[in-house]
Amino acid sequence: MAKKEKHNVIVGQSGGPTAAINSSLAGVYCTAIKRGYKKVYGMVHGIQGLLDKRVVDLSEHIEDELDVELLKRTPSAYLGSCRFKMPEINEGKEVYEKLFQILEELEIDVFIYIGGNDSMDTIKKCSDYAIITGSQIKFVGCPKTIDNDLALTDHTPGFGSAAKYIATSVKEIIRDCWCLEIKGGQVVIIEVMGRNAGWLTGATALAKGEDCEGPDLIYLPELPFDVDGFVAKCEKLLKEKSSVVVAVSEGIKTADGKYVSELGSASEYVDAFGHKQLSGTATYLANLIASKLGCKTRAVEFSTLQRAASHCTSRVDLKESYQCGQAAVKAADEGDSGKMVCIIRTSDDPYASTTAINDVHKIANEEKVVPREWINKDGDYVTDTFLEYVRPLIQGELDPIMVNGLPRHLQKGIQL
Amino acid sequence: MAKKEKHNVIVGQSGGPTAAINSSLAGVYCTAIKRGYKKVYGMVHGIQGLLDKRVVDLSEHIEDELDVELLKRTPSAYLGSCRFKMPEINEGKEVYEKLFQILEELEIDVFIYIGGNDSMDTIKKCSDYAIITGSQIKFVGCPKTIDNDLALTDHTPGFGSAAKYIATSVKEIIRDCWCLEIKGGQVVIIEVMGRNAGWLTGATALAKGEDCEGPDLIYLPELPFDVDGFVAKCEKLLKEKSSVVVAVSEGIKTADGKYVSELGSASEYVDAFGHKQLSGTATYLANLIASKLGCKTRAVEFSTLQRAASHCTSRVDLKESYQCGQAAVKAADEGDSGKMVCIIRTSDDPYASTTAINDVHKIANEEKVVPREWINKDGDYVTDTFLEYVRPLIQGELDPIMVNGLPRHLQKGIQL
Repeated sequence: MAKKEKHNVIVGQSGGPTAAINSSLAGVYCTAIKRGYKKVYGMVHGIQGLLDKRVVDLSEHIEDELDVELLKRTPSAYLGSCRFKMPEINEGKEVYEKLFQILEELEIDVFIYIGGNDSMDTIKKCSDYAIITGSQIKFVGCPKTIDNDLALTDHTPGFGSAAKYIATSVKEIIRDCWCLEIKGGQVVIIEVMGRNAGWLTGATALAKGEDCEGPDLIYLPELPFDVDGFVAKCEKLLKEKSSVVVAVSEGIKTADGKYVSELGSASEYVDAFGHKQLSGTATYLANLIASKLGCKTRAVEFSTLQRAASHCTSRVDLKESYQCGQAAVKAADEGDSGKMVCIIRTSDDPYASTTAINDVHKIANEEKVVPREWINKDGDYVTDTFLEYVRPLIQGELDPIMVNGLPRHLQKGIQL
Repeated sequence: MAKKEKHNVIVGQSGGPTAAINSSLAGVYCTAIKRGYKKVYGMVHGIQGLLDKRVVDLSEHIEDELDVELLKRTPSAYLGSCRFKMPEINEGKEVYEKLFQILEELEIDVFIYIGGNDSMDTIKKCSDYAIITGSQIKFVGCPKTIDNDLALTDHTPGFGSAAKYIATSVKEIIRDCWCLEIKGGQVVIIEVMGRNAGWLTGATALAKGEDCEGPDLIYLPELPFDVDGFVAKCEKLLKEKSSVVVAVSEGIKTADGKYVSELGSASEYVDAFGHKQLSGTATYLANLIASKLGCKTRAVEFSTLQRAASHCTSRVDLKESYQCGQAAVKAADEGDSGKMVCIIRTSDDPYASTTAINDVHKIANEEKVVPREWINKDGDYVTDTFLEYVRPLIQGELDPIMVNGLPRHLQKGIQL
């Protein structure tokens, strides 16, 4: 039988970026070339850009091995990202028709989408549409999210690097807090991303060790947040030590389901310019503690720093991210569609992992949260089992390529 | 003539910490031992702790060369810091009597204080008091501040590392902003420390290069901030590009002298709990832009991260910080008192520096700000001359010593 002629691969990045998402892109690119595909197209700003025919030929942007290494170390989505939910097939047929027409024009055999829950929903719908219409294009998802909330995979690419950056910064913040003794004490509230899943917030506990006490309290969004209980705990801690450091998820809610971040703006304050003032979870709690306990407080938000800090990445994470990109192309090349690459932990000590392929229908729109038994009884810290799960994922570094004192990234990003 | 017997050295750290202040401490410790002093005491929480006789024998904490290397890489003030202003000599004689009695008891020959403006005021007053009372104790200051606002020194230890961390993070934030195209565009406001001096805010321009456009606008506290002009510039930029990144100093003021950070809280908003809501400069401006231009905005505050990020330091900075500690002990050992170590730039290309000693009376309570000619005509960016001044200070790295995936620091800090 004649070997089937291979045409082109297209790859896109979707959702909130991570420090590892470009390692997956590098894995996709290198594997597609190695497996004999003619061209590797990149969607500029994901499927939203693709629908506007905004695509690039990646070989024009990645010229040599050094470029591949720079790409791995480049923060954010190199191709640009989007937040675009594909319509249900029966409600938006014209979108699918347009999309598949563009893919046919580009002679696409393989469609790889690197992203989180919403992106896997895109893979699911597109692969379903391909089956319905008899298209031979293979759709495979490559996982990505700092939130670590995807089902079936042991963990997600991007999580380990974000956890490493956060634990590193928390150690530094704890030292900083301790050094200035403040009369009446001080409470520092650190806000971490993860609206429904507390994986990253829990990772602040990695700071604890021989050289650091770690945070005093950690609140995940998996459990209801007791505002009064929190104030009482801070009051007690301030009697024992002069600086108290608390980590909270941006998504903690009170027992009646209200986001803590919404409590502060509930009264719809409008300032002199007519702007509604919104405050984050940490800012709200810092103001609350200052008012209730009369001590100095400070709110620290990691903001986008935690998902973009490519200067402080985990080698394990970047390696696995690359491997997920490789595995996605391999699966599609071997005929899989409607699948997502998962990471399987094959050994705890020493840590080892491999990749596997799972049906994307079992993954899309599911959220994996921290199990109750990995949070302590009081609901204000994670357990040792949690830490044993996370610690292997922050090991090793992929040092930046430094030029003139700063980490060098691949070009200025895609410019169309 | 018999060589004078040497007794002990005492060293303290004061004011806001930096990622380099412990390198100066290491320089002081190693040089004092090398020059034959018997003991090196550390003030726990600066002169405030010293007045309570809270001191440690540093040789009990720094056991070997590895400990010295860890100390250099430890963020925040290892000994603890304080914000304590010594009274005028004629108004607080009893404080000086107590202090000098403690120093006599500890058999101190040399008193080194690592700090900024207020700390140099302490050196000035103590050395004056020593002259008045005939004490032979030598008082020498070692500069430190991320703000780079000390007079007579080319720059201050701690500034280069903070500048490097900030420029690194700004590059990452700019990529992150670009990747998600948002309808109507988005404006990200980054707030940087430096209430009266814009050195660090200006350093965000280091991000600009082959692989990054750099911030779009930069506002230093040296010039009055025109709120309406700023909004108009953002509006114009949003027509040209989908993501606009602005760096502002925390201390920018309007022409009538009001801090921008105070505009938002001017109406004394009190929330449901009775807490006054305060917002930072970036938060205020982000809310303002959202309201005036209807686009998405985000405020990013580097907060204490920028002064504590020992995982991302400049080798030039840490080397000079160590040398300043060395030079301080050498000066005192050779009989100087009432002096501060300064860094002198001896060559621009290649960059080279040395240390010198200046009269602390010329330094204390002076603030060095960014010269007008180093800010562009429109007052919204720094010039190339500014960048030529800063760039040598961020060169090279002193990589963290990684243990189990995280940077290791020296013990948990001083525990008394």
